[in-house]
Amino acid sequence: MPLAMNRDVFITCAVTGSGATQDRSPHVPRTPREIADSAIAAARAGAAVVHCHVRDPDTGAPSRRPDLYREVTERIRDADVDVVLNLTAGMGGDIVFGPPDAPLPLNPEGTDMIGAQDRLVHVAECLPEICTLDCGTMNFAEADYVMTNTPGMLRAMGQAMTELGIRPEIEAFDTGHLWFARELVREGTLAPPALVQLCMGVPWGAPNDLNTFLAMVNAVPDDWTWSAFSLGRDQMPFVAASVLAGGNVRVGLEDNLFLDKGVLATNAQLVDRAVGIVERLGARVIGPEAVRERLGLVKRAPR
Amino acid sequence: MPLAMNRDVFITCAVTGSGATQDRSPHVPRTPREIADSAIAAARAGAAVVHCHVRDPDTGAPSRRPDLYREVTERIRDADVDVVLNLTAGMGGDIVFGPPDAPLPLNPEGTDMIGAQDRLVHVAECLPEICTLDCGTMNFAEADYVMTNTPGMLRAMGQAMTELGIRPEIEAFDTGHLWFARELVREGTLAPPALVQLCMGVPWGAPNDLNTFLAMVNAVPDDWTWSAFSLGRDQMPFVAASVLAGGNVRVGLEDNLFLDKGVLATNAQLVDRAVGIVERLGARVIGPEAVRERLGLVKRAPR
Amino acid sequence: MPLAMNRDVFITCAVTGSGATQDRSPHVPRTPREIADSAIAAARAGAAVVHCHVRDPDTGAPSRRPDLYREVTERIRDADVDVVLNLTAGMGGDIVFGPPDAPLPLNPEGTDMIGAQDRLVHVAECLPEICTLDCGTMNFAEADYVMTNTPGMLRAMGQAMTELGIRPEIEAFDTGHLWFARELVREGTLAPPALVQLCMGVPWGAPNDLNTFLAMVNAVPDDWTWSAFSLGRDQMPFVAASVLAGGNVRVGLEDNLFLDKGVLATNAQLVDRAVGIVERLGARVIGPEAVRERLGLVKRAPR
Amino acid sequence: MPLAMNRDVFITCAVTGSGATQDRSPHVPRTPREIADSAIAAARAGAAVVHCHVRDPDTGAPSRRPDLYREVTERIRDADVDVVLNLTAGMGGDIVFGPPDAPLPLNPEGTDMIGAQDRLVHVAECLPEICTLDCGTMNFAEADYVMTNTPGMLRAMGQAMTELGIRPEIEAFDTGHLWFARELVREGTLAPPALVQLCMGVPWGAPNDLNTFLAMVNAVPDDWTWSAFSLGRDQMPFVAASVLAGGNVRVGLEDNLFLDKGVLATNAQLVDRAVGIVERLGARVIGPEAVRERLGLVKRAPR
Ligand SMILES: [Zn+2]
Ligand SMILES: [Zn+2]
Ligand SMILES: [Zn+2]
Ligand SMILES: [Zn+2]
Repeated sequence: MPLAMNRDVFITCAVTGSGATQDRSPHVPRTPREIADSAIAAARAGAAVVHCHVRDPDTGAPSRRPDLYREVTERIRDADVDVVLNLTAGMGGDIVFGPPDAPLPLNPEGTDMIGAQDRLVHVAECLPEICTLDCGTMNFAEADYVMTNTPGMLRAMGQAMTELGIRPEIEAFDTGHLWFARELVREGTLAPPALVQLCMGVPWGAPNDLNTFLAMVNAVPDDWTWSAFSLGRDQMPFVAASVLAGGNVRVGLEDNLFLDKGVLATNAQLVDRAVGIVERLGARVIGPEAVRERLGLVKRAPR
Repeated sequence: MPLAMNRDVFITCAVTGSGATQDRSPHVPRTPREIADSAIAAARAGAAVVHCHVRDPDTGAPSRRPDLYREVTERIRDADVDVVLNLTAGMGGDIVFGPPDAPLPLNPEGTDMIGAQDRLVHVAECLPEICTLDCGTMNFAEADYVMTNTPGMLRAMGQAMTELGIRPEIEAFDTGHLWFARELVREGTLAPPALVQLCMGVPWGAPNDLNTFLAMVNAVPDDWTWSAFSLGRDQMPFVAASVLAGGNVRVGLEDNLFLDKGVLATNAQLVDRAVGIVERLGARVIGPEAVRERLGLVKRAPR
Repeated sequence: MPLAMNRDVFITCAVTGSGATQDRSPHVPRTPREIADSAIAAARAGAAVVHCHVRDPDTGAPSRRPDLYREVTERIRDADVDVVLNLTAGMGGDIVFGPPDAPLPLNPEGTDMIGAQDRLVHVAECLPEICTLDCGTMNFAEADYVMTNTPGMLRAMGQAMTELGIRPEIEAFDTGHLWFARELVREGTLAPPALVQLCMGVPWGAPNDLNTFLAMVNAVPDDWTWSAFSLGRDQMPFVAASVLAGGNVRVGLEDNLFLDKGVLATNAQLVDRAVGIVERLGARVIGPEAVRERLGLVKRAPR
Repeated sequence: MPLAMNRDVFITCAVTGSGATQDRSPHVPRTPREIADSAIAAARAGAAVVHCHVRDPDTGAPSRRPDLYREVTERIRDADVDVVLNLTAGMGGDIVFGPPDAPLPLNPEGTDMIGAQDRLVHVAECLPEICTLDCGTMNFAEADYVMTNTPGMLRAMGQAMTELGIRPEIEAFDTGHLWFARELVREGTLAPPALVQLCMGVPWGAPNDLNTFLAMVNAVPDDWTWSAFSLGRDQMPFVAASVLAGGNVRVGLEDNLFLDKGVLATNAQLVDRAVGIVERLGARVIGPEAVRERLGLVKRAPR
C-alpha cells in the first residue's frame, strides 16, 4: 500500500516575489542581474524551475517593465546551467480600497489593475516555458487590499497563455480557486497537462493545517501535476508535506526569508535545504529536462 | 464511539436572498409582507431562525432600504409564531469590473460598495438577534463580479455588531474565510459564543464534496456553534451532511428553488423536507428558545 | 462540482444475522420460513438485496445447516417479488479463548472454526448471487472472542467463490481489511467488478466517525461498487452518510433492532425508513435487475 | 494558523524486534550485550527512548526469558548516556493456525499464547519506564498467523501495568485499536497521561497512506501524547509525516533494515537520519528528561 509519496520530485525556486521583503533581507535580489544570478545559483543548488518577478532596480518596488523581464530571461537562458523559466503573470490585479467607511473611490496608490492582454505583455515577449495564473480573488493579509482575478479575466488570460504555447502554473490559494481551475480545464480554456501550485498558509487563503492540505490534494485530478508550498516559517515542513502527499515543492525568498530562526537565507540555501529533506525522505530530485518531458514544455527564445 | 452527529438541530430558513431568483420561481417573496409571510410559514414548518434580505417591492431587485427591513421585522415579530430573526448585512459589498481588457473603471451598474456603518444602518435600526458577516472576498459565479469584504471592512463591521449586541453569523465560503473568522474571534473583534455558517458549493468558493466539507468542519473550533448548507440541488443532501458532521442546517429559496427535480418549492416546503430528513436520522429539531439559550441571544424591539 | 453523491442507490437488508438478538426483539426471524418472509417483506419495501444467515429453528442459535439455507433460498426465489440473494459465509470463523490468565486451550463452547471448503458448503449448494467474505481478523466486542479470517483462509475462500461464479461481498471492518481486499483483487484471487461493504462502528473495528469513514471511502478503488452501514443506533444516519459519500446502503435487524428510540422495528420498516431518507436526499432507489447489471450477477437455481 | 506541527519531538528507537530480520542484516542485534550496545548507540545519536525485545543468544529467535531482559535493562541503565527504557510486552500473543482446510488444532510450532500475568513477568521484574500494549487482534502478514490480544487480555494487562506504575505505550495498528484504547482510558483501566504509537503500514493493519494516517491522528484525543511510524521503506517519510501532523517519531531495525536503497543501516544511523529530518523541518529533538516530564515517568531500579 503506497504512501502516495512522490519519489521523483522537482523543486521550484520563487526567487524574489513582489512583496516588500527587500527591507527585511539583503539577500532578496532586486536588479535583473541580481535576480538572474540568484536564480542561477538556485538552479545549481537543485532547482529545476525558477519562478521570477522583476523589481524596479532603483526602488525595489515590483515592476511590470518588459525590458527588465527580458534581461532576466536572457541572463538565465545564457547561464551555463539549464533551468525551466517560470515568469509571474500575477501583477496588474491589485485593488486597494479606501478606509472601511469610504471604500470607494479606489486608492490609486496601490491599485494597479490592468487588462488581460496588458498583464501578459512581458510573457508574450519573453516566452517563458511556464507563467503563473492566480486562479481567484481574495483578501491578501493587509486591511484594504484585494488580489483580484475575476472569472472573466482568468478566462481571457488562460486563453491567451494557451495560444502562446506557454504552460500556465495555476496558483490555487484556496479550495474554490482549485474548483475554478478544474472548470478552466474542463471547458478547454487551459490545455492539458495541467499544472497547479497549492499555495498554503497565505492569509487569507487556505490555512496550512494538514486537514485542509489533504482536502486540496484529494481535489487535484489524477492526471494533473502539482506542487505545494507554505508561506513563512513552515516552508521546509511543507517541502516534506508535499512530497509525502505526492507532490512537488517550492521554496525561495518570495515565500520565506529564513533558513533557521533568526538566520537569513539565500535562495540557493533554501533550495539546498529542500534537497536535503527530499533526499532524506528517500526521493530523488529531478532536473529541468525531466520536468519538460512531464509537462510538454518547449524551450524557446524570446521574441 | 460517536458519529459526532448533532442530535439537537436548528433549522435556518433563508427566505429570499438577493439573487435574480424572482424570475425563476413565483414562490420567491418580494414585498415585505410576502417576505414576512413566507418567513412565518417557514417558522411554522419548523425553522427556528429566518434569514431575510429585502427587495424593492416594484422591481424585485435587492434593496437596502431600512423601511423595508423594518416592515419585515415588525411583521415577523408580530406573528403568532416565535422565531429568531437573522438579517443580512451582506449588501453593499458588490464590485463589478469592466470587461477583461478594461477592468477599470468599475462598472457603476452593479457596483454598490458602501462604508461599514452604511452597511449596518438597517441592522442598527431593526436590532435583529443575528446578522450575517460575509467573512471574505471572492469571485461569485459571474464573469466580472467580486463579493468584496476586506479585512478592514470586516473588522469595522464586526466591531459594530459586537457593540450593538447582535450576534454575527459568520458566513465562511472557503477555508480562508474560516481562518480569518478565527482571527476575528481570537483578537476579540467578535465576542463568543461564535456562530458560523459553512456555505458550500457557491462558485467560486469551497466546493461541496465531502472531503472539503470535512476539512472545514475539522477547522471549526470546538466551542463554536455551526451550520452548513449547499447551494443548488444538493441542498437536501447537505441537510443530512451537516447533521451527520455535528452541525445545524439551512434551507430556503435563497439557495435553491426546487423541492424535487422540476418541482418549484415554497420555503415552508423546504423546511418541512429538512425536518423530515433530520427526524429520520434520529435527531430532534429544536426551536427558537433553545437557539437563544445556546447563542446568548436577546430578543429586542426595533429602535 | 459534485458532492460525489450516489443518485442510484441500492439497499441491502441484513435480515437476521447470527448475534444473540432474538432475545431482544420478537421481530428477529428464526425459522427458514420466518427469515424468508421477512426478507420478502424487505424486498417489497425496497431492498434490492437480502443478506441472510440461518438459525436453528428450535434454539435461535446461528446455524450452518445447508438444509436451512436451502429452504430460505427456495422460499425467497419462489416469492413473487424479485430480489438478489446474499448469503453469509461468515460462520465457522469464531475463536473463543479461555480467561485472560489461561487463554489456551480454546473455549470449545464458542469456538466453531472449520476449514475453508466447509464454510462454503451451503453457498456451493444454494448458489446465491452474492456471498460475504469477512476480510480480516479482529476482536469482536466480547472479552474473549475473535472473528478469525486469516490471509490463508481468505485466499482459499475467495478462490472458491470465484470458481463458483458467486460475487463476494467483501466485508471490511477496518482500514486494514480494505487494504487486504485490494490485495486479493490485485493478485487475481477475486475477479472484478469488486463489491465491498464498509462495516462501521462494530467494536472493535473502525469507529463510525466521519473522518474514519471518509478515509475508508477514499481508499475504495474508483472501479469498485461499495456500500456501508453502521452498527446500532446510527444505522439511519449512515444511510445518509453512505449515499452522500457515493455509496449504497444496508439496514436490517442484523445491525440494529430499533426504528426509533424504544420502538422495535421490522426489517420492512427499516427498509422503508431508508427509502424515505434516500428519496428525500434526491436519490433514486434501484432494484435487483439494476444491481445484477452493475455487478455482473447471474441468478441461478440451487444445485 | 498552525500546521499543527510538533516542534519538540522525541525519537524512539525500536532496536531489534521479534521478526525474522536477523537473517537479513548483520546489524540486527541478538545478544543482550549487542542489544544494549545498539540501544546505547541509538541514544547517543539522539533517541530519547529505546524500545527493546530480547532474542535467544544462540538462535536469534524472539524470547521472553527474564534474565535476558534483565541483562539488557541493566546494561542500558549502567550506560553513561541517559535514555528512557521501553520494553515490549507484545510476546505471548501469537496464534498460528493449521492450513485453510484444517485450521484447528492450532499449530503448536508458532503458537506461543500465554496468560496476562505471564506476559508481564519480565516487565514486573525490570520495571522499565514504558512497556507496550498491542491494542487489538489482527492478521499479521503471514498466511496463518494472528497477533492476538482480546479485550479481556488487554484489560488484564493494562490493569497490571497501571498497578506496576509503568506507562503503557498503546500500539494502535488500525482505527479500531485506537477506539478500544480510548475505551481503556475512559473506563480507567489505563491512567492518564496516555501514550499511543500509531503503527502504520503493517500488513494487515492500517495502510500508510496520508488519508488513513490523518484519520487516525484526528482520532487521538487532544490530551494524549502520540508517535507514529511506518513499517518498511517509508520509515523516513513517516518521520516527517508524524512531525508535520503533531506527533513524535519511531525508527529502528525492528521496522526497517535500510538506510538507503540497498544500504543496510545500524540503529544509530537510522536515528541520525531521523534527527536530520526533524531538524531540517525546523523542529527540535528532545531528550529523555523532557519525555519523563511530559509523561510522568519515574526511572526505577529493576527488582
Ligand atoms: Zn510569484
Ligand atoms: Zn443571505
Ligand atoms: Zn451477516
Ligand atoms: Zn516491538
